[in-house]
Amino acid sequence: MARISAKVKEQRGEGDARDVLLNAASELMIEMGTHDVSLHAIARKAGFAAPLVKYYFGSKEGLLVALVERDTERSLTQLKDLLAMPIDPVAKMRIHITGIIRTYARYPYLLGLLGEILRGHGFNSKDKIKQSFALPLIEAQRQIVEEGIQDGSFRDLDPDQLYFFIVGACQYLFAARVAFRDVMGGKPADPEFAKDFAATAVDIILNGMRA
Amino acid sequence: MARISAKVKEQRGEGDARDVLLNAASELMIEMGTHDVSLHAIARKAGFAAPLVKYYFGSKEGLLVALVERDTERSLTQLKDLLAMPIDPVAKMRIHITGIIRTYARYPYLLGLLGEILRGHGFNSKDKIKQSFALPLIEAQRQIVEEGIQDGSFRDLDPDQLYFFIVGACQYLFAARVAFRDVMGGKPADPEFAKDFAATAVDIILNGMRA
Repeated sequence: MARISAKVKEQRGEGDARDVLLNAASELMIEMGTHDVSLHAIARKAGFAAPLVKYYFGSKEGLLVALVERDTERSLTQLKDLLAMPIDPVAKMRIHITGIIRTYARYPYLLGLLGEILRGHGFNSKDKIKQSFALPLIEAQRQIVEEGIQDGSFRDLDPDQLYFFIVGACQYLFAARVAFRDVMGGKPADPEFAKDFAATAVDIILNGMRA
Repeated sequence: MARISAKVKEQRGEGDARDVLLNAASELMIEMGTHDVSLHAIARKAGFAAPLVKYYFGSKEGLLVALVERDTERSLTQLKDLLAMPIDPVAKMRIHITGIIRTYARYPYLLGLLGEILRGHGFNSKDKIKQSFALPLIEAQRQIVEEGIQDGSFRDLDPDQLYFFIVGACQYLFAARVAFRDVMGGKPADPEFAKDFAATAVDIILNGMRA
C-alpha cells in the first residue's frame, strides 16, 4: 500500500490522483445508473488499489462529498452571477431551470448522492453539503421566486414547495435513464429526447408559475 | 429454520406472514428514508429469522417486487376506473396527479425501489414490474394527455416527456423528506407542508400544460 501510493504520487501529483478517482466514481455512477457503487469498484475503474481511496479522501464518504462539491461548484458560481444580472425574474428563472437540467443531465447520480450524504451519520459531511450546496441553492431560488412575485410575474407561490417541485421535475428523467432504457423504445437514453425534455420542462414550469 | 417456519405457519397463515414481512419492509424504508435496506433489517423488524424471507419470497428481489405490486395495485385499479369516467381531460389529469402524489406520500421509497428493480439483473422481475406497473401507468397518462390535446385543453406536449416531468415533480419532496428533515426548519417533514405541496404541484402542472 505504501509502495503503491508512493508510486502514484511519483507518476502524478496528489491532486491528479484525486481527480482520477473522482472521474472514475462519476463515470461508474453514470454507467450503473445509480450513486450506489462500491469503493472497490471505483478503485478498480481508476486502476488504483482500494486502500488508496481512503488515503486520498479519508473514507468513502469523503470521496462522495468531494464528488458533490466538484459537480456543483460551477453551477453555484453561475447561480451567484445569475442573481446579480440586470434581467427580469422570468428570464432569471429560465436560465436557472436550464442550468439545473444541464447539471442533472451531466451528473444524473447527483441527487441520489446528495440524499445519501444528507441521510448519513457523518455530521461533518452533512453540514458541509448543507452549507456549501443545499442552502445556497434553496436561497438563490427563493430570491428569484420572490423577485418574480413582487414584480407581478409569478403567482404567490411558496418558494420552499417550488424547490422540491422544480428539482424533482428537472432531474428524474436523467436519474431514471438506465432503469428506463428498455421502456418507451429506448427514448429516455436518446440525447434528442433529453434536449426536447429541457425545453418542455422550462416551458411548463414558467407557464405554470405565471401570474 | 424448518422448525421456525413450521411454527410461524401454525401461528398465522402463509399470506399473513407475507403481509407482516411486506409491512415491515415498507415501514423500515419509510423510517430510513430509502429503499436501500438489508434483508436482515427487514426480518429483524418483522421478528422473523432472515431465512424465512427467502422461504416466503424466494429472494430479497422477490420481496421487493411483491412490495411494488402491493403498493401500486390500488392506484392502478383507480387509474383504470379514471380513464373510463365521463369527465373532461383536465379533470382527469387533476385526479391523476393527485393520485400520484398520494401514492408517493404514502410510499416515499417507491420510485427508488422501482429504479433498483428495473436496473437489476433479474429479467423476470424487471419484466413483471414493466408489464404490471410502468407500462400501464405510462399508457394511461398518455391517453389523458392525448385526449386533452385533441379537445384543445392542453398544448401539444410529448406524453413521454410529461411522464418524467410529472412523476419527478410529484415524488421528490417525499423521497427527500428524511434527508431534508433538518433543512428549511423541518418543513419537508410537516404534513401541512405536504398537503399544500400537493395543491401547488397540481396547480403548476395544469396551468403549465394549458393550451
